[in-house]
Amino acid sequence: MTCKFILRIACDDRPGIVARVSSYLAASGGNILDAQQFEDRLSERFFMRIVFDPADRSLDLLRDGFAPIAREYGMEWDLRDCAVPAKVLIMVSKFDHCLIDLLYRKRIGEIDMDVVAIVSNHPAEQNHPRISPGIPFHHLPITRDTKPEQEARVRALIEETGAELVVLARYMQILSDEMARFLSGRCINIHHSFLPGFKGAKPYHQAHERGVKMIGATGHYVTADLDEGPIIAQDVEAISHRDEPDDLVAKGRDVERRVLARAVRMHIEGRVFINGHRTVVFAN
Amino acid sequence: MTCKFILRIACDDRPGIVARVSSYLAASGGNILDAQQFEDRLSERFFMRIVFDPADRSLDLLRDGFAPIAREYGMEWDLRDCAVPAKVLIMVSKFDHCLIDLLYRKRIGEIDMDVVAIVSNHPAEQNHPRISPGIPFHHLPITRDTKPEQEARVRALIEETGAELVVLARYMQILSDEMARFLSGRCINIHHSFLPGFKGAKPYHQAHERGVKMIGATGHYVTADLDEGPIIAQDVEAISHRDEPDDLVAKGRDVERRVLARAVRMHIEGRVFINGHRTVVFAN
Amino acid sequence: MTCKFILRIACDDRPGIVARVSSYLAASGGNILDAQQFEDRLSERFFMRIVFDPADRSLDLLRDGFAPIAREYGMEWDLRDCAVPAKVLIMVSKFDHCLIDLLYRKRIGEIDMDVVAIVSNHPAEQNHPRISPGIPFHHLPITRDTKPEQEARVRALIEETGAELVVLARYMQILSDEMARFLSGRCINIHHSFLPGFKGAKPYHQAHERGVKMIGATGHYVTADLDEGPIIAQDVEAISHRDEPDDLVAKGRDVERRVLARAVRMHIEGRVFINGHRTVVFAN
Amino acid sequence: MTCKFILRIACDDRPGIVARVSSYLAASGGNILDAQQFEDRLSERFFMRIVFDPADRSLDLLRDGFAPIAREYGMEWDLRDCAVPAKVLIMVSKFDHCLIDLLYRKRIGEIDMDVVAIVSNHPAEQNHPRISPGIPFHHLPITRDTKPEQEARVRALIEETGAELVVLARYMQILSDEMARFLSGRCINIHHSFLPGFKGAKPYHQAHERGVKMIGATGHYVTADLDEGPIIAQDVEAISHRDEPDDLVAKGRDVERRVLARAVRMHIEGRVFINGHRTVVFAN
Repeated sequence: MTCKFILRIACDDRPGIVARVSSYLAASGGNILDAQQFEDRLSERFFMRIVFDPADRSLDLLRDGFAPIAREYGMEWDLRDCAVPAKVLIMVSKFDHCLIDLLYRKRIGEIDMDVVAIVSNHPAEQNHPRISPGIPFHHLPITRDTKPEQEARVRALIEETGAELVVLARYMQILSDEMARFLSGRCINIHHSFLPGFKGAKPYHQAHERGVKMIGATGHYVTADLDEGPIIAQDVEAISHRDEPDDLVAKGRDVERRVLARAVRMHIEGRVFINGHRTVVFAN
Repeated sequence: MTCKFILRIACDDRPGIVARVSSYLAASGGNILDAQQFEDRLSERFFMRIVFDPADRSLDLLRDGFAPIAREYGMEWDLRDCAVPAKVLIMVSKFDHCLIDLLYRKRIGEIDMDVVAIVSNHPAEQNHPRISPGIPFHHLPITRDTKPEQEARVRALIEETGAELVVLARYMQILSDEMARFLSGRCINIHHSFLPGFKGAKPYHQAHERGVKMIGATGHYVTADLDEGPIIAQDVEAISHRDEPDDLVAKGRDVERRVLARAVRMHIEGRVFINGHRTVVFAN
Repeated sequence: MTCKFILRIACDDRPGIVARVSSYLAASGGNILDAQQFEDRLSERFFMRIVFDPADRSLDLLRDGFAPIAREYGMEWDLRDCAVPAKVLIMVSKFDHCLIDLLYRKRIGEIDMDVVAIVSNHPAEQNHPRISPGIPFHHLPITRDTKPEQEARVRALIEETGAELVVLARYMQILSDEMARFLSGRCINIHHSFLPGFKGAKPYHQAHERGVKMIGATGHYVTADLDEGPIIAQDVEAISHRDEPDDLVAKGRDVERRVLARAVRMHIEGRVFINGHRTVVFAN
Repeated sequence: MTCKFILRIACDDRPGIVARVSSYLAASGGNILDAQQFEDRLSERFFMRIVFDPADRSLDLLRDGFAPIAREYGMEWDLRDCAVPAKVLIMVSKFDHCLIDLLYRKRIGEIDMDVVAIVSNHPAEQNHPRISPGIPFHHLPITRDTKPEQEARVRALIEETGAELVVLARYMQILSDEMARFLSGRCINIHHSFLPGFKGAKPYHQAHERGVKMIGATGHYVTADLDEGPIIAQDVEAISHRDEPDDLVAKGRDVERRVLARAVRMHIEGRVFINGHRTVVFAN
């Protein structure tokens, strides 16, 4: 496969951005392979993702060349090489279906990530996935009293490993506000309901109680506001009156792992931009 | 087609109900064509819907014969002839996509109902469907002050026409508690969100604001508790960051009319049982 | 709403196209509102759709200015004003659910088209939609013997009305090869199966016979090769063993009209490009 | 949980079956927990599945008591104890996503089966799932010449282990007619297309070539007629023009494993009846 770089841009909208950026790439010998853009008429923000073949230019050279343009337009931007997989730390509690699914998708090449650590508040025998034996597993139990200390250890781990993304793969602890802020924009959670319905604890029991005819799952960025972060992906599954809460838990696993995998892949491929309380997702 | 009767039963669960009911029908010469049953382990309620060919027995004869069994088991029950279509009154405001869809489905035989009246709080020229010219249209405007009077007229109309079901096909007025009680179990509303998300007014604007990735619609029985009635049918539609509130309104029309048609058909075919806050729906 | 133009381009892929086109628009004072592009690695073709605000430039001026660029890159292209709705001729036989649905979507502004004629091989009383009384209806019956003559009349009608798109909304006649060629790239058909399954006649009966668990519909461009034209949109609906062929016909209507409406809207908004046997669809 | 038995019946339709069967169970002290039935008007066959609490009666006693009724009505039937999980042999080639998914669902209790052996025509290091270390793995390579011998070994394995169901979890070899007959009604395959579209080899490449807008998967019973067996479950996934054949392969994995898991679970829970070329599936 040819070498590919990804350029991501967000800035206030104004005429000529596409022309300016694409002309710079063309002048640098780059060939655009894929580009998607979106102008949010309501916020007047502009978002763009460009995948291009950089020919013989290096990442550093292109970054240096692009910096003045970015300054001129007041862009938030990054440019990275697809060949370097994102470093990801996965957190999990007892239920390991999402963890195992993510590891499996990584193994078969569907999600191109480097899982640098797995953190669980439960011991390894319960959920350490045998399918990825090389990944360091950290058992970091947590109680109300030890929460600050446990989070400090997770933080240290993130810094040591250089994790760019933290995935809460059915990690059943609520992050402190401080931790949520620290992870702002780089922590994805799977909530086992179709948000904004059934926030908080035991959403499948809430769903059964309310008598809905479909259950869902939501992959979203974590914010200090519980279950209120920007949504990346959602999906649903039909249920019936025959389903008791336990059936919903079982049926929900499929949709949870599908939605989380999608949210993680979208983020890692640089397809997601945070736009206030919403996200822009350039799907493929 | 052979003549068909439908027997519907709800009672506390205990052994032998199926045997008792099916033996009665067999002894009466009836042949069961379709039967579905459900025992709710949580509420310990039993629900059953039987479609049968009554051979030469009349409705009255069968009712008389079944009454003692129903008493013995403390059943709520009804027995009716499929050949007699249900009488339905449809209420609508400005948006007429659900109304037109219901009338179309009636015309082609998909929903077997007799629409006895259309009531709107807006004048006919806006929404009187030309595709069903024979149906009486009643323009009953409403203001905060005239609400009791308007509802009394609707009530009178229901009683005059013998309407068994009232369908709120995007009728944008909130029924009074008294009216909701009067229509208990026989009034279906379409709410343009995936409940319990986005209750109340302008759900598509709420959905856009929250940044969800799917919108939905919910067909439910009307209760005094707004948007809290037992749910009959739900469905969703994928959306993207490109969709502004107006796009959601447009995309939502498809899912609204599909969900409302399904809820109405399920009710009319005797497939829905109210089970506390939930419903049992014996789908085909 | 601001005035908007749409520029559509298809050409062999080579570096610099985006830069060239976007620079031209920027230099002309245009502001890109939405742009989507696709480079087909297999066919090495490049496709692009740009919606832009032309500021004060006229369509003619922009066309003249763009022509040299188009020549240089060997582009197939067109540039049009969104404010001018596409002229559409709809053909129908007995089943009118797709026709009625299209007319309804037109009326509420979801599909921005100008229906210049309805042609049916069945008399008006069966399917003339009362909801759009102003549209000329042409009853053009057809038999094996009169087919060339009937098609000639349809052709004349297309030319007189200037119809840019012909929609076969459950028109149950097979077009002659000559007619199919005449309408190449501007005639959309709805086939009532999930192609390539169940080509030809009575697909719901075929589906029942085969025992599939979902039925579908396919919106595609008409080619001389029956049911083999490039596909624009598809969708499915779950069914069960309880569904007899007639039930499939009924359930299929929903998915047919949804899929056809989508295919027509995509085409009319300039979102579809034919790419050999396939299509590129820039969805919103 | 209470002990539960499942009674499955298929016979020609005639009046009184439900009464006869339910009266027998009631007289035996059994309490029906769930019952579903279907009368196929076209084939005039009757199908019924009853889950009941047998109170203190043994399986043998109930079988003996029911046998005369079954004879009287010419029933095909079986009665089994839910507490005894079905014995399943899984066959696989290189792609192990379906295998791993089935084993995972077994581990978490979603599919109640006893996997007695895994057979692969590829060596263990490629696909032996570490997540289920206790299951015997048999590497049985196959070539055109050794096919009869390899199949004989699989057959012997089925007989030794008492496997009631064989699952082809992306086993990429075509069974001989003899083998297909031997496994008639107890071998489920996952075909990676929405049948009847794209039978045979490389369906995703066929799907890309044809330009469909959705891909699918089909879980079906294996018959001597390749990809023509009775269908148990199907589902689809939306795709776009951006997807190349390899993307379809990746996207297809989700729908394949979901559909196969559903087909296997439906079979194992006794919910599937073969009805000529079709199936009756009493879903929950």
